[in-house]
Amino acid sequence: MIDEKKYPVLSKVDYPSDIRQLSLPQLKQLCTDIREYMVDTISEIGGHFGGGLGAVELTVAIHKVFNTPYDLVVWDTGHQAYPHKILTGRKEALNRIRKFGGISGFLKRSESEYDTFGAGHASTSVSASLGMALARDLKKEPRKVVAIIGDGAMTGGLAYEAMNNSGVLKTDLIVVLNDNNMSIAPNVWQISNYFTEMIAHPDYNKFKGQIWDLTGKLDQFGDRMRKIAVRLEHGIKAVITPGMLFEALGFRYFGPVNGHNVHQVIKIFEQVKDMKGPILVHAITQKGKGYKPAESHSQRLHASTPFDKITGKAHKKSNEPVSYTKIFGNALVEIIEKNPKVVGITAAMPDGTGLDILKEKIPQNYYDVGIAEAHAVTFAAGLATQGIVPVVAIYSTFLQRAFDQIIHDVSLQHLHVVFILDRAGLVGADGPTHHGAFDLAYLRLVPGMVIMAPKDEAELRDMVYTAAEHCTGPVAVRYPRGSALGVPLSDGFKKIEIGKSEKLTDGDDIAILAIGSMVDYALKASDILKGNGINCEVTNMRFVKPLDAERLDKIASKFEKIVTIEENNLPGGFGSAVAEYFIDANYKNDILRIGMPDEFFDHGTQPELHKQISIDPESIASRISSFIRSSKSTEKAIL
Amino acid sequence: MIDEKKYPVLSKVDYPSDIRQLSLPQLKQLCTDIREYMVDTISEIGGHFGGGLGAVELTVAIHKVFNTPYDLVVWDTGHQAYPHKILTGRKEALNRIRKFGGISGFLKRSESEYDTFGAGHASTSVSASLGMALARDLKKEPRKVVAIIGDGAMTGGLAYEAMNNSGVLKTDLIVVLNDNNMSIAPNVWQISNYFTEMIAHPDYNKFKGQIWDLTGKLDQFGDRMRKIAVRLEHGIKAVITPGMLFEALGFRYFGPVNGHNVHQVIKIFEQVKDMKGPILVHAITQKGKGYKPAESHSQRLHASTPFDKITGKAHKKSNEPVSYTKIFGNALVEIIEKNPKVVGITAAMPDGTGLDILKEKIPQNYYDVGIAEAHAVTFAAGLATQGIVPVVAIYSTFLQRAFDQIIHDVSLQHLHVVFILDRAGLVGADGPTHHGAFDLAYLRLVPGMVIMAPKDEAELRDMVYTAAEHCTGPVAVRYPRGSALGVPLSDGFKKIEIGKSEKLTDGDDIAILAIGSMVDYALKASDILKGNGINCEVTNMRFVKPLDAERLDKIASKFEKIVTIEENNLPGGFGSAVAEYFIDANYKNDILRIGMPDEFFDHGTQPELHKQISIDPESIASRISSFIRSSKSTEKAIL
Repeated sequence: MIDEKKYPVLSKVDYPSDIRQLSLPQLKQLCTDIREYMVDTISEIGGHFGGGLGAVELTVAIHKVFNTPYDLVVWDTGHQAYPHKILTGRKEALNRIRKFGGISGFLKRSESEYDTFGAGHASTSVSASLGMALARDLKKEPRKVVAIIGDGAMTGGLAYEAMNNSGVLKTDLIVVLNDNNMSIAPNVWQISNYFTEMIAHPDYNKFKGQIWDLTGKLDQFGDRMRKIAVRLEHGIKAVITPGMLFEALGFRYFGPVNGHNVHQVIKIFEQVKDMKGPILVHAITQKGKGYKPAESHSQRLHASTPFDKITGKAHKKSNEPVSYTKIFGNALVEIIEKNPKVVGITAAMPDGTGLDILKEKIPQNYYDVGIAEAHAVTFAAGLATQGIVPVVAIYSTFLQRAFDQIIHDVSLQHLHVVFILDRAGLVGADGPTHHGAFDLAYLRLVPGMVIMAPKDEAELRDMVYTAAEHCTGPVAVRYPRGSALGVPLSDGFKKIEIGKSEKLTDGDDIAILAIGSMVDYALKASDILKGNGINCEVTNMRFVKPLDAERLDKIASKFEKIVTIEENNLPGGFGSAVAEYFIDANYKNDILRIGMPDEFFDHGTQPELHKQISIDPESIASRISSFIRSSKSTEKAIL
Repeated sequence: MIDEKKYPVLSKVDYPSDIRQLSLPQLKQLCTDIREYMVDTISEIGGHFGGGLGAVELTVAIHKVFNTPYDLVVWDTGHQAYPHKILTGRKEALNRIRKFGGISGFLKRSESEYDTFGAGHASTSVSASLGMALARDLKKEPRKVVAIIGDGAMTGGLAYEAMNNSGVLKTDLIVVLNDNNMSIAPNVWQISNYFTEMIAHPDYNKFKGQIWDLTGKLDQFGDRMRKIAVRLEHGIKAVITPGMLFEALGFRYFGPVNGHNVHQVIKIFEQVKDMKGPILVHAITQKGKGYKPAESHSQRLHASTPFDKITGKAHKKSNEPVSYTKIFGNALVEIIEKNPKVVGITAAMPDGTGLDILKEKIPQNYYDVGIAEAHAVTFAAGLATQGIVPVVAIYSTFLQRAFDQIIHDVSLQHLHVVFILDRAGLVGADGPTHHGAFDLAYLRLVPGMVIMAPKDEAELRDMVYTAAEHCTGPVAVRYPRGSALGVPLSDGFKKIEIGKSEKLTDGDDIAILAIGSMVDYALKASDILKGNGINCEVTNMRFVKPLDAERLDKIASKFEKIVTIEENNLPGGFGSAVAEYFIDANYKNDILRIGMPDEFFDHGTQPELHKQISIDPESIASRISSFIRSSKSTEKAIL
């Protein structure tokens, strides 16, 4: 139970029905309690909470005014949903958020009936809530449907498609624009400049000037005219507002409202609650609101490890090796310093992708296109037609959003675009919406795509260099989230021959073909097996496409048993490529495919997740051991 | 050579440089000639040409004003590009457009230096041209970059992402909005109502009324005030125009201009040509302009078989069986008549998907969301959370645009959404941008996805029924473009057991596992082989996921040699699934995987393309015959 003295109102609130009993002063105190509770809890365990701090009053007001869970509330990109979780039965669970077995950091349908729609990727809430609203209409139910979307998510084409379609369908739907002008990175949303620009419009100012001039000259009617002129300006402002864009899309616009005045927010929700048709409520909020270090370092505290509550500074990390992300970022800068025809592109994630380094050092070769992955890729294709080499750095999971553009705009035209996929494999605390589980499969089916995965950070550098300088068509490099292995780096770069693997250890008992992050695990498993008298030949395959056919032929003739290991879902992945090759070549070896099974995976640390699905070094060793000792059917039974 | 008397100016124009020598009257005649030539040619051979007829003057003006190909012109969704092809060295080639070995119906980089960017999927032009403009800036070249986008393509989120990003990057870029208010189906673009709505805005009308009232009462200053009021209204209109949305996105707006007045269009291009920053030119055009039957039946003549030049009516078709498209459309209506919780969703293709039948018969269960495939899928997920069963009908190639939404919004939440993929496999004349080459692979990697493909139209009916009424999670049905087989249909529906295949013929020599369209070809190949004394056991696999493991086990134990046949690219597809199964189960059979090789394919008729890549019945029989007679390596050598 949480402390009654520390959190006088929150301690009495478990569900939205409790909120509905509170007075206005109590609601204000509730907001204070929630903020305090979030800072207290998250500073100890880490987590995203800037977005949540900014959405406290909105959350309280929504659950106060709307009859959740009967009324359907859809949150976009769930980082803002911590207060929602606290107020919907998961207060006590907050201290295990994003931990293995704990609650998710995002909305999750299986977790609560209040989580109406899961969201880890941005810009989905309007589409999903429009679907719910239409379902409500078909079933003739009196539910309200509310979507809350951030300004950053508004740069996504999906949000625009949905807003536009809402205006056409004209059903009852309330969209709350949580406008903190901050999304994940400094916002690139042009539309947010809308109001400012309108007021500065020369035509507008010209006729305002004329009115003023004229009324000054009129003795008799001067005052009256000036009054009318003021009214005119009001009239124009009523038309020319930030709402205009949304009105053009078929929404009725209300706002802007101060999103941190819980009374005002409640009032506006009460007003619009029973209105017909698509409604947009524009709330201005501040990310990190109420917690000074988060307000002033909103970017740094977006995703957070445990930190000091007073200073907001992260606790000292152990002496971890530098991340793959930084290695890539630095490598790209080195490449561009020598070849200014190479450019970097991010979809609103400069820090997450390592492109912040490029942005800082060579800004003229850096583009942030907003949360707009599809555009990022077609934009890159356009650059490539003119001999520029675009390096598109997008997380494995988010690049799924540009799948068609990879095929239709890049690969079909055999354009030289480099795809850098960070967060490939199991990402850890962000969980199922963010795991990079599919890229080896969804890229392998694309004709002409070259797919590489480095065994360590030194190889990553060489692969980025090879992809940028020694390829002519589409090429992808994928690597895991987090710290690299800590191997020494040499100056400069080495070209890697396309489609050539690398034998790492000799051994006669079994061949292990590993790719990317699993090469290190394969070596560790091989060490364990050596202890048991089993000698493995471990190959760093480097390429999923094209496969090293020469190596595979050699291995097929030398070894009876072969193991493939990958950190990707098995259907269509690396092991699948090897299976296709062996079937087509009519080889009859026994093959054990180790990888992520054909399902979705919850959150936890990467080692916890690897262990859970038996792709940690110990499990790999034990699976290989069984595979060697017995027939394959026995190995399967052991799992 | 084309007839000088019939086409006095066009006969002298081969390239844009020729256009630049012409007088205004000659330019007008050129437009007339192009129209006449298009109608003459396309009426004989068939093709899309309504869009092209609407873009004649735009095309002439662009090539007159801009220094193509040095200046870069990017066309969106190339159906509008026939005049462009005629004026850029491909005049004589028009009579082989969309034919095997002839020029493409779309833009194609490999075809001409004037085709700067290939486009078969909509909404790509602004992203691509923005990329080109930034490349121009990096290289400090004086090129102009122009994109031409239709109003329909403006509903796509990709166009919005790109417009928004253009406004941020502020480079020199001219976007021409070819506004024929018609796209492929009647337009669902809310924004096109923008101007009308603004003028009708109550606030606007209120202050207009006040001004009028007041000036009426003023004797002395009445006239003067009325003049000012008129100026005020102009002032307001200058601000409140269709351009406002684009101004909000950071573009300078010019227009609207009559897109069929070649002089006016040239003038406006001359005006904006050297301006700085992003420019939007709004041209109003009419689809099918200048050819009466196309003007009045623009929907019907969008895609066209050969037709009578005078009446516009298609020549009588032979007695072909009804299309898969219509079979699906009718089946869905029958299902919804009994279960009103099922709804149909299209992304601006009611006719192409067969949902026009639903629209006509049960409009309340029909949604057209615009060219917005990603939204269609997340919208469907929202509906599914409320117990509605959405049937999302999108061509195989276009569903690539919703790949992430299928994973993140539908499958991760295990929502019951039915995906109907028409045009799976080789589509024919539309070529590489439109082939449904990848769906078996990109859907197979999705956890929990059920994937079916019917052997004929009777099975299609049962599969649609099974998917809608007897599944609980994501489920896909894929089938080819065009006529079905003509098998008899029974009343009502039969449930098909999920994951169960169907043995069609008995035979002891070899097992053929076929899926979807290839079942019929497998039976035909089997007949040919029977004539050569080879007896095949042909199985209609029905499901790519889950595979019928029981059947595969039986077949593995009975046959030494097994063949898989699919109309999908091989990496990751159906044969890949079978290969994975056999490898994992440690079966040692010989397997021949027949399907589409790992590349892109040009246009031609479906039979021509099948023959070209050796998946027609005769080639299949011959490949199986070699496979049986000899070792696999020999079979490979034969290909």
